[in-house]
Amino acid sequence: VAECYVGIDLGGTNIGWALVGQDKQIIRQDELKTEVAEGRDKVIGNIRTAVSRAIDGVNRGDIVGIGIGTPGPMSHKEGLIIKPGNLPCMENVHLRKIIRDEFNLPVTLENDANAAAFGEYWAGAGEGTKDLVMFTLGTGVGGGIIHDGKLVRGHFENGSELGHIIVKPGGRRCSCEQLGCLEAYSSASFMAERARELIAQGRQSSLAAFINPQDGAGIEAPHVVAAAQAGDPVATEVFNDACYYLAAACVTMQHCSNPQVIVLAGGMINAGEFLLSRIQQYFRSMTWRLMKDYPRIKFATLGDDAGVVGAAGCVWQAREANDW
Amino acid sequence: VAECYVGIDLGGTNIGWALVGQDKQIIRQDELKTEVAEGRDKVIGNIRTAVSRAIDGVNRGDIVGIGIGTPGPMSHKEGLIIKPGNLPCMENVHLRKIIRDEFNLPVTLENDANAAAFGEYWAGAGEGTKDLVMFTLGTGVGGGIIHDGKLVRGHFENGSELGHIIVKPGGRRCSCEQLGCLEAYSSASFMAERARELIAQGRQSSLAAFINPQDGAGIEAPHVVAAAQAGDPVATEVFNDACYYLAAACVTMQHCSNPQVIVLAGGMINAGEFLLSRIQQYFRSMTWRLMKDYPRIKFATLGDDAGVVGAAGCVWQAREANDW
Repeated sequence: VAECYVGIDLGGTNIGWALVGQDKQIIRQDELKTEVAEGRDKVIGNIRTAVSRAIDGVNRGDIVGIGIGTPGPMSHKEGLIIKPGNLPCMENVHLRKIIRDEFNLPVTLENDANAAAFGEYWAGAGEGTKDLVMFTLGTGVGGGIIHDGKLVRGHFENGSELGHIIVKPGGRRCSCEQLGCLEAYSSASFMAERARELIAQGRQSSLAAFINPQDGAGIEAPHVVAAAQAGDPVATEVFNDACYYLAAACVTMQHCSNPQVIVLAGGMINAGEFLLSRIQQYFRSMTWRLMKDYPRIKFATLGDDAGVVGAAGCVWQAREANDW
Repeated sequence: VAECYVGIDLGGTNIGWALVGQDKQIIRQDELKTEVAEGRDKVIGNIRTAVSRAIDGVNRGDIVGIGIGTPGPMSHKEGLIIKPGNLPCMENVHLRKIIRDEFNLPVTLENDANAAAFGEYWAGAGEGTKDLVMFTLGTGVGGGIIHDGKLVRGHFENGSELGHIIVKPGGRRCSCEQLGCLEAYSSASFMAERARELIAQGRQSSLAAFINPQDGAGIEAPHVVAAAQAGDPVATEVFNDACYYLAAACVTMQHCSNPQVIVLAGGMINAGEFLLSRIQQYFRSMTWRLMKDYPRIKFATLGDDAGVVGAAGCVWQAREANDW
């Protein structure tokens, strides 16, 4: 092992860890339970265990540092977890200092969505570019912007929250309470909800078979995608809406940060070429012809490793920029 | 005079110039005609004259360099004017090299909208911040983004074109041919056009008096603002639309680059508090409550000097970043 970086992905259920080499490849990795219910000391102890496993047997001088991706809101500058919804026991924990003091190694803390975007930039679908935008399409919609090789965090350290850019003023209410957010149209939960709504309005759809008559639930995003592929009109309408508003968001980001690549990540990309080609087609029909500054829209390549690889990449970046 | 910077604002009609001191104040300034019709050599000669007047009598060693704001598309990296609509004779001119060779001083070339935004960041409404977004509300809508003290140019060097972010997918056709651009709703030309449309549809308005029966023209944006202030319903609807979509764009930029300040510039800000308070009010009603990462929305303070001061500021920035 020559120079290497530790990446930790702190989630509400699991703590992922990886040791990543200079070639950006994972040397070894695993995960352990976060054990949120056990409280703060237990969670911090589990993070320590994750780091210990990652660096076990490695020459201390070869370890550049430890990168930790954590749910927001958080502060990179202060190395502080502020108030994460799924980790209530970690509120106001100065995690950077705790881990730095424990291991006597440089530590950098990053928003987990930003870390994942940095992973794709550094070692995934965006390798070789300097300007990238990532949309993570899951239950919600996350985002990340890399400008000239650096993460866009912004003044309040809450930048790149691309799920909440407004794609339809006055439109559907988002989980954040804003109206017309991208997340309210292009997330997996939108697809499921919207299909239920249309069926409740009396529209005929093969998706009706999934509905549990007790609570009205049962339709999931993958059902919608499969039904759209089979030509179901309700599913097609919902799927097209999700792709259409995402394409509008891509045009908006084209004109904001003018990236070379827009990377799509998250569970929804399991829909594959059917999804990607629809988004690309809407994008081409919506963007201008004035200049040919078209970003390439493509899928992420790191899958579930984006978090730990990105956290490790943040170590590389922190050393480059001397920003610990 | 201690250290100083030359700022040139190359426009289709005039070439503005200024000598700016270390305190960011204009030491002297003036403008001369661009004389586009006389062709490329004449225009370049006029730029030379502007620079000569700016540095006349100044100790050569005190001049840090020359900044030139030019209409896009252009390349900062290559110091090249590409294909400016209002300066056809300057297509593919390597202006940076020409001026550098002539004066034997460092030269930096910047998109004129970006230069103006940099001016407000460096010496105007955004002084003291590191993250700023500017919307210039004129005939069209221009933009500029400063991220962590640096202009966002993007991979294709066409970033911060904020007039063309999509605020209403499938909406009004913009001059750029996209549907639903910010510029198609929040520009002076939208306000005039939309008022004409509503009157042509039979709506009663005091603005009808301005219409020239020959060509249907005659309504200008300031008429709409004045009529809205007087309570005219058509003018109020149009004015509110312009403010509403701009507020939506502000929310979008809040979640993208998360700036401390959003600066509004351009002719439309002559509408004063009436405009600003309406935009702020829509913004407050549209943004989330999840976090208090609200940018301050305020007016530009440099007025017509933003271009030359910003071009001079780009000299300061180029020296800081060693990016000539």
